[in-house]
Amino acid sequence: MSTHYRHVSTYLEQLLRSHTVQELEDRLQPKLTPSPARMPGGSRLTPEAIARRWQVLNAAPDTQSAVLDPQTLVQAECYRRNIENFIGTVKIPVGIAGPLQVNGLFAQGSYYVPLATTEAALVASYNRGAQLLTEVGGCTALLMNEGVSRAPGFAFRTVTEVGKFMLWAIAQQEAFKYAAESTTRYGKLTDMRITVEGNHVYLDFQFNTGDAAGQNMVTIATQAICDYIREHSPIQPQHWFVEANLSGDKKASAQSFLSVRGKKVTAEVTIPTTVLQKRLHATPAQMVEYWRMSAIGGTLTGTIGVQGHYANGLAALYIACGQDAACVAESAVGVTRFEVTPADELYAAVTLPNLIVGTVGGGTGLPSQQACLEILGLAGTGNARAFAEVCASLLLAGELSIIGALCSGEFTRAHQRLARGKISDHGQVSGHERLSEQGDEGDYASHA
Amino acid sequence: MSTHYRHVSTYLEQLLRSHTVQELEDRLQPKLTPSPARMPGGSRLTPEAIARRWQVLNAAPDTQSAVLDPQTLVQAECYRRNIENFIGTVKIPVGIAGPLQVNGLFAQGSYYVPLATTEAALVASYNRGAQLLTEVGGCTALLMNEGVSRAPGFAFRTVTEVGKFMLWAIAQQEAFKYAAESTTRYGKLTDMRITVEGNHVYLDFQFNTGDAAGQNMVTIATQAICDYIREHSPIQPQHWFVEANLSGDKKASAQSFLSVRGKKVTAEVTIPTTVLQKRLHATPAQMVEYWRMSAIGGTLTGTIGVQGHYANGLAALYIACGQDAACVAESAVGVTRFEVTPADELYAAVTLPNLIVGTVGGGTGLPSQQACLEILGLAGTGNARAFAEVCASLLLAGELSIIGALCSGEFTRAHQRLARGKISDHGQVSGHERLSEQGDEGDYASHA
Amino acid sequence: MSTHYRHVSTYLEQLLRSHTVQELEDRLQPKLTPSPARMPGGSRLTPEAIARRWQVLNAAPDTQSAVLDPQTLVQAECYRRNIENFIGTVKIPVGIAGPLQVNGLFAQGSYYVPLATTEAALVASYNRGAQLLTEVGGCTALLMNEGVSRAPGFAFRTVTEVGKFMLWAIAQQEAFKYAAESTTRYGKLTDMRITVEGNHVYLDFQFNTGDAAGQNMVTIATQAICDYIREHSPIQPQHWFVEANLSGDKKASAQSFLSVRGKKVTAEVTIPTTVLQKRLHATPAQMVEYWRMSAIGGTLTGTIGVQGHYANGLAALYIACGQDAACVAESAVGVTRFEVTPADELYAAVTLPNLIVGTVGGGTGLPSQQACLEILGLAGTGNARAFAEVCASLLLAGELSIIGALCSGEFTRAHQRLARGKISDHGQVSGHERLSEQGDEGDYASHA
Amino acid sequence: MSTHYRHVSTYLEQLLRSHTVQELEDRLQPKLTPSPARMPGGSRLTPEAIARRWQVLNAAPDTQSAVLDPQTLVQAECYRRNIENFIGTVKIPVGIAGPLQVNGLFAQGSYYVPLATTEAALVASYNRGAQLLTEVGGCTALLMNEGVSRAPGFAFRTVTEVGKFMLWAIAQQEAFKYAAESTTRYGKLTDMRITVEGNHVYLDFQFNTGDAAGQNMVTIATQAICDYIREHSPIQPQHWFVEANLSGDKKASAQSFLSVRGKKVTAEVTIPTTVLQKRLHATPAQMVEYWRMSAIGGTLTGTIGVQGHYANGLAALYIACGQDAACVAESAVGVTRFEVTPADELYAAVTLPNLIVGTVGGGTGLPSQQACLEILGLAGTGNARAFAEVCASLLLAGELSIIGALCSGEFTRAHQRLARGKISDHGQVSGHERLSEQGDEGDYASHA
Repeated sequence: MSTHYRHVSTYLEQLLRSHTVQELEDRLQPKLTPSPARMPGGSRLTPEAIARRWQVLNAAPDTQSAVLDPQTLVQAECYRRNIENFIGTVKIPVGIAGPLQVNGLFAQGSYYVPLATTEAALVASYNRGAQLLTEVGGCTALLMNEGVSRAPGFAFRTVTEVGKFMLWAIAQQEAFKYAAESTTRYGKLTDMRITVEGNHVYLDFQFNTGDAAGQNMVTIATQAICDYIREHSPIQPQHWFVEANLSGDKKASAQSFLSVRGKKVTAEVTIPTTVLQKRLHATPAQMVEYWRMSAIGGTLTGTIGVQGHYANGLAALYIACGQDAACVAESAVGVTRFEVTPADELYAAVTLPNLIVGTVGGGTGLPSQQACLEILGLAGTGNARAFAEVCASLLLAGELSIIGALCSGEFTRAHQRLARGKISDHGQVSGHERLSEQGDEGDYASHA
Repeated sequence: MSTHYRHVSTYLEQLLRSHTVQELEDRLQPKLTPSPARMPGGSRLTPEAIARRWQVLNAAPDTQSAVLDPQTLVQAECYRRNIENFIGTVKIPVGIAGPLQVNGLFAQGSYYVPLATTEAALVASYNRGAQLLTEVGGCTALLMNEGVSRAPGFAFRTVTEVGKFMLWAIAQQEAFKYAAESTTRYGKLTDMRITVEGNHVYLDFQFNTGDAAGQNMVTIATQAICDYIREHSPIQPQHWFVEANLSGDKKASAQSFLSVRGKKVTAEVTIPTTVLQKRLHATPAQMVEYWRMSAIGGTLTGTIGVQGHYANGLAALYIACGQDAACVAESAVGVTRFEVTPADELYAAVTLPNLIVGTVGGGTGLPSQQACLEILGLAGTGNARAFAEVCASLLLAGELSIIGALCSGEFTRAHQRLARGKISDHGQVSGHERLSEQGDEGDYASHA
Repeated sequence: MSTHYRHVSTYLEQLLRSHTVQELEDRLQPKLTPSPARMPGGSRLTPEAIARRWQVLNAAPDTQSAVLDPQTLVQAECYRRNIENFIGTVKIPVGIAGPLQVNGLFAQGSYYVPLATTEAALVASYNRGAQLLTEVGGCTALLMNEGVSRAPGFAFRTVTEVGKFMLWAIAQQEAFKYAAESTTRYGKLTDMRITVEGNHVYLDFQFNTGDAAGQNMVTIATQAICDYIREHSPIQPQHWFVEANLSGDKKASAQSFLSVRGKKVTAEVTIPTTVLQKRLHATPAQMVEYWRMSAIGGTLTGTIGVQGHYANGLAALYIACGQDAACVAESAVGVTRFEVTPADELYAAVTLPNLIVGTVGGGTGLPSQQACLEILGLAGTGNARAFAEVCASLLLAGELSIIGALCSGEFTRAHQRLARGKISDHGQVSGHERLSEQGDEGDYASHA
Repeated sequence: MSTHYRHVSTYLEQLLRSHTVQELEDRLQPKLTPSPARMPGGSRLTPEAIARRWQVLNAAPDTQSAVLDPQTLVQAECYRRNIENFIGTVKIPVGIAGPLQVNGLFAQGSYYVPLATTEAALVASYNRGAQLLTEVGGCTALLMNEGVSRAPGFAFRTVTEVGKFMLWAIAQQEAFKYAAESTTRYGKLTDMRITVEGNHVYLDFQFNTGDAAGQNMVTIATQAICDYIREHSPIQPQHWFVEANLSGDKKASAQSFLSVRGKKVTAEVTIPTTVLQKRLHATPAQMVEYWRMSAIGGTLTGTIGVQGHYANGLAALYIACGQDAACVAESAVGVTRFEVTPADELYAAVTLPNLIVGTVGGGTGLPSQQACLEILGLAGTGNARAFAEVCASLLLAGELSIIGALCSGEFTRAHQRLARGKISDHGQVSGHERLSEQGDEGDYASHA
């Protein structure tokens, strides 16, 4: 939140042009006015419950119909395990990138990848990258490891008590496993790490969760372990919590690279110079120049990992396919690497250490989300690992496309054309934009 | 990607049960098979273009109708500046949290906050927190600073050239401003910082972008500056890029706290013990115990900032309101702080240094997204600062609710009940779940 | 290296007052002038070799005698395995902090801790903290884990090759152990982790190194493993390096908290209010106020861990006791935590995950360094673990003392008095400084 | 502190072989035994005061004479502003690296660089790099910016109070400057930044400190500002601290790259292939291969910046030249970059954002430290900027040398030879080591 005092000064001057200090101060005070009505009906999805909520919102008819369209109303019941205080749906446009050829341990073949986004040029850019990969025979993708963790924390009075607790806990692996796995048909407790900080101790439990992303599964299983601890531990904590913010849940962390958290995948490709120049209008050497400068740029700003725009592709894919969109925060971390090979081709790789994905559970069973998984060919049981390999391959496509656009100078033009001034400056449309209506994918560029 | 060799060993053994080494090796090789068809029609949104894409996808009728429902087909044209290779929409259920009383410099009054998510318990948890804030007169929210940056990079041959370039560039502020602002009616160039790394130099341009999130606006404006540099600089770079990964675009970075990047907001509240116990079933001291352990937990795992689950609320709000969901990666960074006051109340604050939000441009004008902004009362021009203050207030509500649930032991129960076993273990439903059908919001808990 | 353009402007203006642009440019050019003489004699320590070096340096007699004093000349031979191009010694003043009562698994009793520093107030501050700990019966210290790692990197052509290499490598644990341990009587290979990034793979070997810090020991042992790999691996890397910067050697890293790197120790104490107020003139609540603000301060600036000034005590102890002073960069990372207990006492803990220390090898056998270890009572075999526990205890003392000084407002005064204006403003001495000549330790404060 | 439960288990088993649980528990308890004597005499340096301290230590005569040699005893008084509880000096061997040709804005010509270390091969390695730089005409070094910061923190009751405080504080720049500069002849207040986090506000004051490192100078000046605030601010904080851990003092932080903290310097060189191969036995391409892998290696482990072993050279130079050795923790952060140029030469650069150095004050005036500065030709006023440029140049030499050694496979051999097994495995000396006695610098390698 560091701000130069001159910027603060300019900002405060602006504020004080329209308000006195006293007025501003009044705005900031708590106000115990009669509160507007709460949303009625909790998790109920009946037409009546929904109608009562809209009554409280008192919205214009157009507003209501944009959210509560007839199809949504008919399908409302399908959302019962996914939402509370339901009023309808928001519609995110979906475009297809692909075909994307993936040569993975689990994913094999060509994929049409549905991406849900409201950002112009995003699908065009990933699509361009996907086609480039496919043109050279696809990328290789390797799932390396998988697991989801939950990390309860226990506060004791002293490190001496911590020591005694550990002595007991390390001997309970079988009991922990039994307690955890009694809560789930799919989850398996695979390992445990211990972190001591003064009189606090965190137990980091690692699970395999089958084809589910598994965050609730591991919460419930870990709760069972904690209950076992409360009943049986000869030494009791002063207080404890089922998750003490050590698992990396929903946030970027350096830990992603260093421990088990979601699926770990690396994807790579080697692209001949001629193909690269034809498709991205850049040479391998230029691409590597950019990569090098951008890797250092990321380092200078204190990012975790080095990459270009994983979040773009991930968010669009997660939203389309019923994944937990909040997990973009932790999943959009990794390493992109570009090299010129001895044969003067471009070697490109992405490494994603923390993909939280599933093909069952969460939002994967909702109608439009399941449809997207079906378009991808990866709906339901047995597909989570392949889905993770497709994720990594998609992000490789996106890194190639955006870096190509930045090298060839097409980056700005693509955004100008596809967003047609609307995003950049809501309103103006320049004449030459009509060209893009021709639908020539060849010159799409990319997005950040 | 660090993995214990025993885990690698177990994993490889599993793989080799169903495949030989040679088979696995074959899977990973590039395959130059005839490629499936590309998506036809680029950014066109005519019924014919859409139909041709579905033809290529060759999907089941139900799959198609889930994505391309009648309303979507009718409204297709509205997505023309937001998507390419359009095939329909994905529907994300929306629930309301609130009323949320915000006492901000810009946001004033009670807000019904639309949240789009597929994760059970999320809306219930934020709703609980919002009502708690409202019950005590609302939270205070203070927008401190705003701006969006774009950071072109220039590679010279030597640092001597870098020095000469800087000497010229620092004298061009007026010219840079003129070039940049000629591309936009709303964007203003407000400052410039310079970063030298060997023979590379990055110029970090900072803009105000009015009510737009502004990422494309600043790209186009910065391109104009770069074009000016190419034409006028007495010393020319070997190569240069309009964005060299120094702006923090779409990724969590330590820089968020230290420079201008989006909107910086802090929100706070003080909650009497009795209210806290009644609503969250926890004391201020317990909440602070958790906060302390979780802050250290975050530190031990190498996160940026310390917080609980900002990404949950942010992703849901961004998706509902037409924000760029990929920006969750950079926006879900900040600091949560809980203290017991001398009067034994709970003081709670959140500080968000990097909210990339807008109320015009991007996806904000799409029908259902605009409807959500209207429910919030913040659609269109003049509302972006208030929107940022509502964001921070919502996240404060979410931190209070989840920490309350973790302290009172309700965290796991809420997930068990609201997701009803479906997420945790797709299928089983326990008997007592029917209780939650009564819709009593009072005992909802929270979500991670 | 980010700098505001106005600061760059001011700086360049200053430069151009005394030099033209051309002159500055000339200064920066390479200059192939006849080079001055090299230092003769390499690692030889004979009086003649040393004399020839001084001849080349052509220094004033006083300069030479300050570095090459008679005792150093007599003892020169003792430095033969510690230095090259030897010309004498630099003398760092040593002060004693203590007695410091440590109740550790390995360290037991009262220690007089030698600290070598040139910074006024440092010894006084740690001494004050040490006496405080001792007055309440000492602190508890718990060594949790130990090990040193070396991480060779192997670059293959493809991830497919990486996969085949891993398949071979995970089956070679016994052979790796045999190769590694054939090079050392003390080092033991204890574990291996694998990190894949595209076509690169890093093997992270973990060793126990007995009472030596062990960095050279693990290099030599890992070289033997690499030699074994080169001879036996069915698939050979394109290139490889015995250390690929994954071990965290000589740099602060988030990995310190997450893997084996040096000795992991936590130390804690509980201090009654009356003692705290008497000795540090602050209450537990004030100390916790500071801790909380400083922990957030560290977070806002992107530090690894949260702590006050570990580097001060560590550098002074490492220099005095013949440790590798460069390892301060990685060892000065950790977590300090202060709390008020239910009984209104102060609970304070430090956690150090990465202490690279030894009591044999390195500089530990040199005369004055060994003398310092003897004063500490920890010279030679069997003492490294106790040394690590004393380190942590010392740093706990330092955190208490500096935070006390910052809370009571004595921080600045202590520096003014003990450095007597010399450091702050080389020259002026204020009148009241003479008081400090009385040598009353009671009111020493602290140092940052 | 994360540890695999099996490692904890093994460790605890070992402990329990020699002690019962009860015995271990007893060791960890506080023990209120009569405390040994304190060190008498505080900061006094008279022979009597020193003798009384040794009496308390009760050390063997050899121990005492190693620390309190005759020259130290004679010179004791010179340490009066640098140490408390003085008992003598520790002697660190000094070797010379160089001549090192530096073409800087401030540093010009060939430097003999004194390095104090106890680690074998360190001086040889930096010496090799220095000679390489000199052979190609020296490296270019560019000081970009300088300053030292101090960041007091102020806790208010509400953000509303914070807002009102800021409104007042931004108008006090002249008064702050007057207050600060009344305490110092050399320090100048140059800028102020403001950081708000809830009801906390940090003011980050930036100073120029002339030729002093200046940490005490800025403390005293900031104290004067704080005193002014306490007297004049219309709104008073609940509590405040002269430094609230936001300045980055004594710790690695991402902030180093993003704000003013010490001296910012970049140094670069271009080396023809033939010279590189002759001196380092590696090609530019090999050096870049290593650089790339090591940069990613650093990223994967969560380091700040990317570099090899800055801490080695910095610690040795800081100790030799009377700098604050604890500042190695914050100064050993930066970016190393290697590239192959279009002409197939090696381009290498280092960028150091946070060099805390001075040529007056601190330990710079002590006899042997001043002698080292004189050997360097940079003792006293007017030399701090040149000293910073020499630092960066030395570290560039060190990066080149170590990476060369890692590429050519000489890294391990050099350590084996120069440490002669003593460090790695205290005792054994292999026969071929005698070769190194010949003092052929040509084949020295490097050190980590």
